[in-house]
Amino acid sequence: MSHPAAPFADHLIGRLQSVRSRTAELAAPLSDADATLQSMPDASPAKWHLGHTTWFFETFLLIPSVPGYKVFDPSYDYLFNSYYESVGPRHARPKRGMLSRPRLDDVLAYRAYVDEALDRAKMRGLLDLDLVSLGIAHEEQHQELLLTDILHAFSQNPLRPAYRSPAPMPVGSAPRAQGWMSYAGGEAVIGAPSGEKGKTVFDCETPRHRQIVPSFCLAKGAVTCGEWARFIEDGGYQTPLLWLSDGWEAAQGAQWTAPLYWRWTEEGWVTMTLRGEQPIDPDAPVAHISYYEADAYATWAGARLPTEAEWEVAATLHAVPGNDMGTDRLRPAVQRGEGISGLFGDVWEWTASAFLPYPGFKAEGGAIGEYNGKFMSGQMVLRGGSCVTPEHHIRTTYRNFFHPQKRWQFSGLRLARDS
Amino acid sequence: MSHPAAPFADHLIGRLQSVRSRTAELAAPLSDADATLQSMPDASPAKWHLGHTTWFFETFLLIPSVPGYKVFDPSYDYLFNSYYESVGPRHARPKRGMLSRPRLDDVLAYRAYVDEALDRAKMRGLLDLDLVSLGIAHEEQHQELLLTDILHAFSQNPLRPAYRSPAPMPVGSAPRAQGWMSYAGGEAVIGAPSGEKGKTVFDCETPRHRQIVPSFCLAKGAVTCGEWARFIEDGGYQTPLLWLSDGWEAAQGAQWTAPLYWRWTEEGWVTMTLRGEQPIDPDAPVAHISYYEADAYATWAGARLPTEAEWEVAATLHAVPGNDMGTDRLRPAVQRGEGISGLFGDVWEWTASAFLPYPGFKAEGGAIGEYNGKFMSGQMVLRGGSCVTPEHHIRTTYRNFFHPQKRWQFSGLRLARDS
Amino acid sequence: MSHPAAPFADHLIGRLQSVRSRTAELAAPLSDADATLQSMPDASPAKWHLGHTTWFFETFLLIPSVPGYKVFDPSYDYLFNSYYESVGPRHARPKRGMLSRPRLDDVLAYRAYVDEALDRAKMRGLLDLDLVSLGIAHEEQHQELLLTDILHAFSQNPLRPAYRSPAPMPVGSAPRAQGWMSYAGGEAVIGAPSGEKGKTVFDCETPRHRQIVPSFCLAKGAVTCGEWARFIEDGGYQTPLLWLSDGWEAAQGAQWTAPLYWRWTEEGWVTMTLRGEQPIDPDAPVAHISYYEADAYATWAGARLPTEAEWEVAATLHAVPGNDMGTDRLRPAVQRGEGISGLFGDVWEWTASAFLPYPGFKAEGGAIGEYNGKFMSGQMVLRGGSCVTPEHHIRTTYRNFFHPQKRWQFSGLRLARDS
Amino acid sequence: MSHPAAPFADHLIGRLQSVRSRTAELAAPLSDADATLQSMPDASPAKWHLGHTTWFFETFLLIPSVPGYKVFDPSYDYLFNSYYESVGPRHARPKRGMLSRPRLDDVLAYRAYVDEALDRAKMRGLLDLDLVSLGIAHEEQHQELLLTDILHAFSQNPLRPAYRSPAPMPVGSAPRAQGWMSYAGGEAVIGAPSGEKGKTVFDCETPRHRQIVPSFCLAKGAVTCGEWARFIEDGGYQTPLLWLSDGWEAAQGAQWTAPLYWRWTEEGWVTMTLRGEQPIDPDAPVAHISYYEADAYATWAGARLPTEAEWEVAATLHAVPGNDMGTDRLRPAVQRGEGISGLFGDVWEWTASAFLPYPGFKAEGGAIGEYNGKFMSGQMVLRGGSCVTPEHHIRTTYRNFFHPQKRWQFSGLRLARDS
Repeated sequence: MSHPAAPFADHLIGRLQSVRSRTAELAAPLSDADATLQSMPDASPAKWHLGHTTWFFETFLLIPSVPGYKVFDPSYDYLFNSYYESVGPRHARPKRGMLSRPRLDDVLAYRAYVDEALDRAKMRGLLDLDLVSLGIAHEEQHQELLLTDILHAFSQNPLRPAYRSPAPMPVGSAPRAQGWMSYAGGEAVIGAPSGEKGKTVFDCETPRHRQIVPSFCLAKGAVTCGEWARFIEDGGYQTPLLWLSDGWEAAQGAQWTAPLYWRWTEEGWVTMTLRGEQPIDPDAPVAHISYYEADAYATWAGARLPTEAEWEVAATLHAVPGNDMGTDRLRPAVQRGEGISGLFGDVWEWTASAFLPYPGFKAEGGAIGEYNGKFMSGQMVLRGGSCVTPEHHIRTTYRNFFHPQKRWQFSGLRLARDS
Repeated sequence: MSHPAAPFADHLIGRLQSVRSRTAELAAPLSDADATLQSMPDASPAKWHLGHTTWFFETFLLIPSVPGYKVFDPSYDYLFNSYYESVGPRHARPKRGMLSRPRLDDVLAYRAYVDEALDRAKMRGLLDLDLVSLGIAHEEQHQELLLTDILHAFSQNPLRPAYRSPAPMPVGSAPRAQGWMSYAGGEAVIGAPSGEKGKTVFDCETPRHRQIVPSFCLAKGAVTCGEWARFIEDGGYQTPLLWLSDGWEAAQGAQWTAPLYWRWTEEGWVTMTLRGEQPIDPDAPVAHISYYEADAYATWAGARLPTEAEWEVAATLHAVPGNDMGTDRLRPAVQRGEGISGLFGDVWEWTASAFLPYPGFKAEGGAIGEYNGKFMSGQMVLRGGSCVTPEHHIRTTYRNFFHPQKRWQFSGLRLARDS
Repeated sequence: MSHPAAPFADHLIGRLQSVRSRTAELAAPLSDADATLQSMPDASPAKWHLGHTTWFFETFLLIPSVPGYKVFDPSYDYLFNSYYESVGPRHARPKRGMLSRPRLDDVLAYRAYVDEALDRAKMRGLLDLDLVSLGIAHEEQHQELLLTDILHAFSQNPLRPAYRSPAPMPVGSAPRAQGWMSYAGGEAVIGAPSGEKGKTVFDCETPRHRQIVPSFCLAKGAVTCGEWARFIEDGGYQTPLLWLSDGWEAAQGAQWTAPLYWRWTEEGWVTMTLRGEQPIDPDAPVAHISYYEADAYATWAGARLPTEAEWEVAATLHAVPGNDMGTDRLRPAVQRGEGISGLFGDVWEWTASAFLPYPGFKAEGGAIGEYNGKFMSGQMVLRGGSCVTPEHHIRTTYRNFFHPQKRWQFSGLRLARDS
Repeated sequence: MSHPAAPFADHLIGRLQSVRSRTAELAAPLSDADATLQSMPDASPAKWHLGHTTWFFETFLLIPSVPGYKVFDPSYDYLFNSYYESVGPRHARPKRGMLSRPRLDDVLAYRAYVDEALDRAKMRGLLDLDLVSLGIAHEEQHQELLLTDILHAFSQNPLRPAYRSPAPMPVGSAPRAQGWMSYAGGEAVIGAPSGEKGKTVFDCETPRHRQIVPSFCLAKGAVTCGEWARFIEDGGYQTPLLWLSDGWEAAQGAQWTAPLYWRWTEEGWVTMTLRGEQPIDPDAPVAHISYYEADAYATWAGARLPTEAEWEVAATLHAVPGNDMGTDRLRPAVQRGEGISGLFGDVWEWTASAFLPYPGFKAEGGAIGEYNGKFMSGQMVLRGGSCVTPEHHIRTTYRNFFHPQKRWQFSGLRLARDS
């Protein structure tokens, strides 16, 4: 770890400060009790997100690098370690909701203490900037989870409280894009280059590699709530032939009859949002569906889900006009920027691709190495980014992933078909 | 419901006010987040206990009897109804821990609102005093549960927070009573008379009836933590022949190796208490054991658990010198008040009796009728009262009951044997 | 173990031979595959019943008492031990259905081998006659279970095969008894005397003791299938207020809507029997109900279940005219033998009594001591005997017991009420 | 369906007869009881395999095509339908072990009846030869499952019966191949062409398509039992960092400490085989491991699992010298046929590839369309073929698939690494 060039370090520390503030701001509408809730093992309390992201900096940046650093509270290591099996014992995940202590105020004091220590360490040139970058990216992931998890927690309360108003929710384009875009097949370059200075990508996005992608079509817009309501009316949830075998089992076992958070009332479908319970917007992208539901819908619609390579090809063409990501060997049937909409910022879009390593992938060593590689089994890739995704996690090569039965994310779909 | 005699009404309302204040005082050491915790389906959040006991008065006393009464918040009926199937839909019990809203302050305001309404109703002679009595008894039960449940919740936190210090915990007698008391057999009168003015008993304690009780011996003191440690050392938890068949299955399934809350450390056994984690006191009565463990211990000790009739006979003789409960047909081998100790106020004592109706028992009608009768299956009777039991729930005829595998109550045991 | 008087020994060995033959005869309609089926953990394969009852004699009578006895197959000890924790390791109960080997023929050869060894041992005066008695009683219990279990196994086969035709099934009296019998209260003598020569009773039926039984009424007949159908029509399974709390949970969890084996068809209710699937007989006693259903029915009917003492008082009066069981202190309101019907031989009747030790009960030591005592928790007593109960298990003091949610026994009910 | 050319039809019918005979022969060592066993929901009784494969021909070939065909037994449709949701209701999979009726003899008679009907239909030119091909392939799959399932069933029996001796088991090569083979990267042609006359491939193997495969190395031999024992000794099952997250959870939940069927004895590791329990052979390929274990082993060994494309490239080069599968654009670093061993016929080899559709994949319509497409979620591809795989299922393009936690197949692994 050498003393880095000052300007870049300054920029990064500026980013760090702004991300750290942003997290605290996200917690502002929450009471201590709100921030303590854990509504299911997949979700964590807001308080835990606040503590865990701070623990990350303390454990990986301050303790190893700052001589004489004194931890804020020795017990927090046990409380706020997450899945890092190599770092030591930790509080069981499903019991995170038992942490009424430390209080929210204590956790915020912990944040301030660590932020200050980071600031001092930066002054002394003690920070490993790669780890700062990783810590920023890690914290941003937890910003998204904090909102996703609090929505789930509030959805369990019969009072259906609003997190804040206005608050992010998928709203879709107006007017919504209709129809299909065609893409000629060819050899595409997929993924991000490793180790570019100052550009954070996760290890799973690398290495950049070539891949043959046959010609295909992609829907111009994501599937909407109105379209989903027609799928429901047409008996989509009662027709086994539309479903994957595992999907049908999951749907029957959990008695799914609509997306998570949808509830039928005399006035029609309503859905729980960060603004409280709201009527569904027929033009907004459907959210909070599992991969299985996405796949069943696509089958019902006579289409399929796109592969992550198809998605990335399209996103590269449209979203980044000046991009140099090597897609020139594809002969696009369309002009850049034309037609397609909503790729980023409404809902994560399930793809047909399993979350597996790219050719030549190397997991990093140590506790950081537990980061992504160990999740490369049983999960499906989602692309794009949702209304609660921090801006720096919006990129064409980003690979999000969840198990196919999960529904509490802002997950939707866009149809594809062979051309 | 007639207008009652003023003095008795005044006395009762006085009791009501003091009980209501006591509940709020019990919640005083708790933060909003503490009061929101639900650590298992059997337990409820402190906030819920505060709300539910208030809902009881609103639903059964104010709404039916006070013309024009306006409920504090219509949604609370759904939130704070408990097992009263006949009163309407209700929030699912295992999800009570999701109620970060209403806030603790809101619930305290609800309490004040209802207390005031009760006070006004009393002035106008609108209160059914039998229901006031029942409501008081009901609230006192929840006072005990509030403490029992918060202990369980805090035990799940690795920080092992203390509820308050000093706080109640079983301490035993000093010097502890040793040896046995003998009781000659005969015909005993068991249970409480129904419908005595101003004397609250639960329906399950009635009717008073005669029962033949053969001669027996009862240990002078409850089994202590020190004695329990010897049972552990002697392999008690690994010896199937000591256990009831269901008990062995429960113990293996849950991997019991000591009472709930006990933890082995380098300094020996420690146990979680309302004062935080503490070394066990070898002379204190053991607490937080299941019926199955109690029975296995008794078998190991060459003894048995007392029946509830035996327990009541002994308690009647010793604890209430001037009692008139009809035990005169028993020829006690001992003088009243001699020898036996700790029957009340340390730990509830498991008996060998299933919680079943007394001969001639009639459940009351309506929602109130759901009170005890419907629990008369699969539960065992405990007698006495623990360090967290309100004074008015300490009486010789009181029948507490829990499923035999439950351990989160302050439950212990006293040995008996045939004589 | 002294050499017993020859006549009694001869009588007992005669009984033994006839019981052993009877068991083999019960297995005669079964193929090797039929005899291998285990349809749930509570049930055992017929082959296992055949082997286990034989193992009992080999383990407790032959091995300890016959010098030089050579076991038939050393592996059978592991396969056919049941719940005798003290005897050694054993094949897991839920995996008994995996025993396609040994074949049925092998097990029958095992039976013949042990029978012959018993015969030789008897000639040499080597048999402990108390254990022979116990072994006979034990084998008879398994005769009943063999039929009960095979009915359950066949009920899982969509072909609904008949075990044999004719085969036992509850048929009820014709004309069925209507109305109530009244019994004056008093002091009753309950239970069987211990240690009477040549009269086998189980330890749980002892010791004989006095008990106060208030006056009561008992229905002259058991509840019939026709009456049960009316309970169903009246919404009995959808009315929570009729049910015990645990019962409602069990009924909802398992989605009970009728007795086990009942199936609704276009022609009405049919039920699985040992003769295959048959229309229900409205006049036959209902069978295959849980305690919870029995209790709910009784509540619906404005009645209750009898205690086991009430049942025994009535049975003693009616069924055993010349009995000397000490009921003379009861002043029966009826003449002996009058009115009441179906106490024995149709269905076991659930009582309101938990299966608990009688005052002064002593469990026997050793493996035999695991016999009944360890089941004295969580189970309810049934009285009488069903159409598949061997004759020697029909007696007024017999205490059968099952967990309250169990339904695969021939279990029904008779109503009682206070008088 | 046109009348096909006679020679091809004759050939196919010849194949059909031989496959049908082979299935019956596989069942010959089994008793009726053996053939009735179902040891877990994943497995089916041998009797069911015999019936289901016959039901396939009756339902898809005879009933639709043979005028006046009379089904053998109308109830068999319900019993022997499997996952074909579109064909109608069916017997629940986990209850297949309840079918002691029909007897094994009945099922064999069913087989003979349908075989005869197929023969007559063939004479009359009524058979759809594509469906005959599919039926043959389907039956061969069940031949493998029959053996796999009976091994699991027998493993549950403490007597550890042998299926037959000799019987197939993985034996490995002697001397076993050591070291690595290198393959230059390039563009490969993967998959089988659709619709080639007389050549059965499953839909999931199509369409043939081009794919970029970077250079890689493949181990010359599969991982052996001896190597696996060293992994165990080195604490492989206790080291979370070696495992995928889902894998660690599965391993902990099921308490895996060795491959399925391995058991530690005083003489060392033994394993259950179709020949009964045997000492492990250190040189034989390890079998009965999950994907998770395979992946953990590869990580421990500093390697990885091959992708299915890598596997297919290697297999095409070595196993089929005269092949025309389009790999000429790969520049192999080795001569064909050199070095690598055991690709086929010992154990199925887990690959790093999820079972997903090839680009352009089209599922067939109707009940047949339920065949493979609906399983394309949550499963991993295995390549090669095991010692119980029928010869016609051994081909370079064959894609077997199972969920990653499954272990009852003859599944092993071969290491790969980047080059």
